[in-house]
Parts: sequence; structure tokens; C-alpha cells
Amino acid sequence: MTVRSTQAVQDFYPDDFAHCYGCGRLNAHGLQLKTRWDGEETVARFTPRPEHMAVPGFVYGGLIASLIDCHAMGTAAAAVERAAGREIGDAPAPRFVTASLRVEYLKPTPLGPELEVRARAVEVGERKVVVHATVSAAGQVTATGEVVAVRMPDSMTAKSTPKERR
Amino acid sequence: MTVRSTQAVQDFYPDDFAHCYGCGRLNAHGLQLKTRWDGEETVARFTPRPEHMAVPGFVYGGLIASLIDCHAMGTAAAAVERAAGREIGDAPAPRFVTASLRVEYLKPTPLGPELEVRARAVEVGERKVVVHATVSAAGQVTATGEVVAVRMPDSMTAKSTPKERR
Repeated sequence: MTVRSTQAVQDFYPDDFAHCYGCGRLNAHGLQLKTRWDGEETVARFTPRPEHMAVPGFVYGGLIASLIDCHAMGTAAAAVERAAGREIGDAPAPRFVTASLRVEYLKPTPLGPELEVRARAVEVGERKVVVHATVSAAGQVTATGEVVAVRMPDSMTAKSTPKERR
Repeated sequence: MTVRSTQAVQDFYPDDFAHCYGCGRLNAHGLQLKTRWDGEETVARFTPRPEHMAVPGFVYGGLIASLIDCHAMGTAAAAVERAAGREIGDAPAPRFVTASLRVEYLKPTPLGPELEVRARAVEVGERKVVVHATVSAAGQVTATGEVVAVRMPDSMTAKSTPKERR
């Protein structure tokens, strides 16, 4: 099966949960990463800004970790929905948070080209999803990630004010 | 021995390597994290900006990963120098890069208070250093990190132009 979706998970997070610096559509200062299905994998693309450097010519590791992190949360949401028979856009996306993040930096990531982040949910539970990811630049994988995503705990929704809730 | 230093590692990276988004003193857009000795540990402090949120009230995971990453590289540099009998400021700091980064998010990190990042080099080699780190908010540890730092490879210094080199 090859399903290529133009819908991004992050466009279906409820407004209260759409402010993430890495991927929130409502965060004007953030990176606004978008996670979409591409067959059995998910893909996100991001072109680092000039200031996102480690040393001249290379992307800083924190950005790579951030891209993997947010893309993994989107992938977790998409995978749980697909397991329930829904595609992105059929319903509000469930919001996952990171329990653990592991990134292996295989080689320096050049600053300039668009980065491609690909991921696959390798374990899909209702409350916990394990995601494997790669980051590529100009067709070369420069980093890999393994992320454990868990459903957002109630303690993280308590700070929304009544006004902010829809 | 308790040595409390006011000198920050990042202030002694050579200019060519002082542009990191996370910790470069010459990156006007970046976070400008500063790593200092506090006895046998290192410490860095950072107050997230309002946009650094995951969901309202909490810090996004990518920032936490970035702080751990940059603080670990600074800790690696400081630890290698101390092993050689030098303190921060005695000489230009050696530049390490991240080989692997693991972050465990123990609980949500509240957005608002200054964060304290503490680290310790648990294995110090000339070319490889292993660092353990914690991130605390309001006295509570919210995340832990394990980072493998390696000396910056020659391939990452090749992009500096002769003009940029000192």
C-alpha cells in the first residue's frame, strides 16, 4: 500500500496543543514542522536557517534532535489514528509527548540543503508508540533517532485556561 | 575540592567555533548557553523564552535536548582541559561534537522558571568524553541526559574560509 497524504498531522492538533516551538502551526516564532504520510513511513522537510549552525557549514545538533522529536510525536499520532482506521484529517490528532529521545549523529549535517526527516512507528500502542527516524541531507543519512512517545498526561493539559480551551 | 569558576567554556572557543545556535557567543540569534565549573560538576542556566513551549505552560523537548547537548560539549571541553592541568580560560577550549545524545523526559518541565543544567564527565579520554546531565526547574529534576562527545573531526573545520581562520 502506498498512501501519499498531503495532510499534515500538526494541522489537526487541537488549537490548545498547536503552540509547540518545533511544530505548532500557531507558534509564529517556531519551526512549524509538518509530518505527512508517505506510504508506510512519514516524512517532514525543513530547511535550517543560517543561524542554525554548529560551526560554519554545519547544522547544530539541537535542531536535529528537535526535528526528530517533533516528527516522532506527529508520527505517533498518525500511527495510532491509522491503527484505529482513521487517516490524517479525519479527526483531531491525539497529542503525544516524548518519554525518551535518542539521537545518533552519524556524520556532520551540511547547512544549506533542505533536510528530510523520515520515520516509522515500530511499536504502536494506544498510550505508547516507539518511532525510528532518520535525518538526511542531499540524499545522505546524517543522523538516526529512536523516540518513545506517550500520550500527553493530564498534568500537561491543566495549564490551559478556560478561555484557551475550545 | 570545590572550585567555582566564573569563566564560561564557550567564551574560550576559538572564534571560528563560536557560532553555535545553542551556545555560540557570536550567534546573535542563538541561546548563548554558558557552561561553568561548580566543583566537580558543571552548571549552565537558561530561562526559556515564551515561544519555547510544547503546550501552554511547558517547555518543548527540543530545547531541553539542545541545552543538554551544548552543555555536554562544554563539559567535555572543560573536563579534558582539567585532566591536562588547565582550567577554563587558561587556553582556547577544545571543540567537541555530539556522537550520541540520549534524553529521558521524567516529567513535564514548567515554562517560566530559569532552568538549571548540571553535568559531570563520567569518562574522559583525549578524543571521547561521556557526560551525564540533569535539567531542573524550581529544584525538581525534569530530564536527564547521557551524551557521548568526540573531538571535532577535520571534516568540520574545512568549511572555514582562510579569512575566517585566525
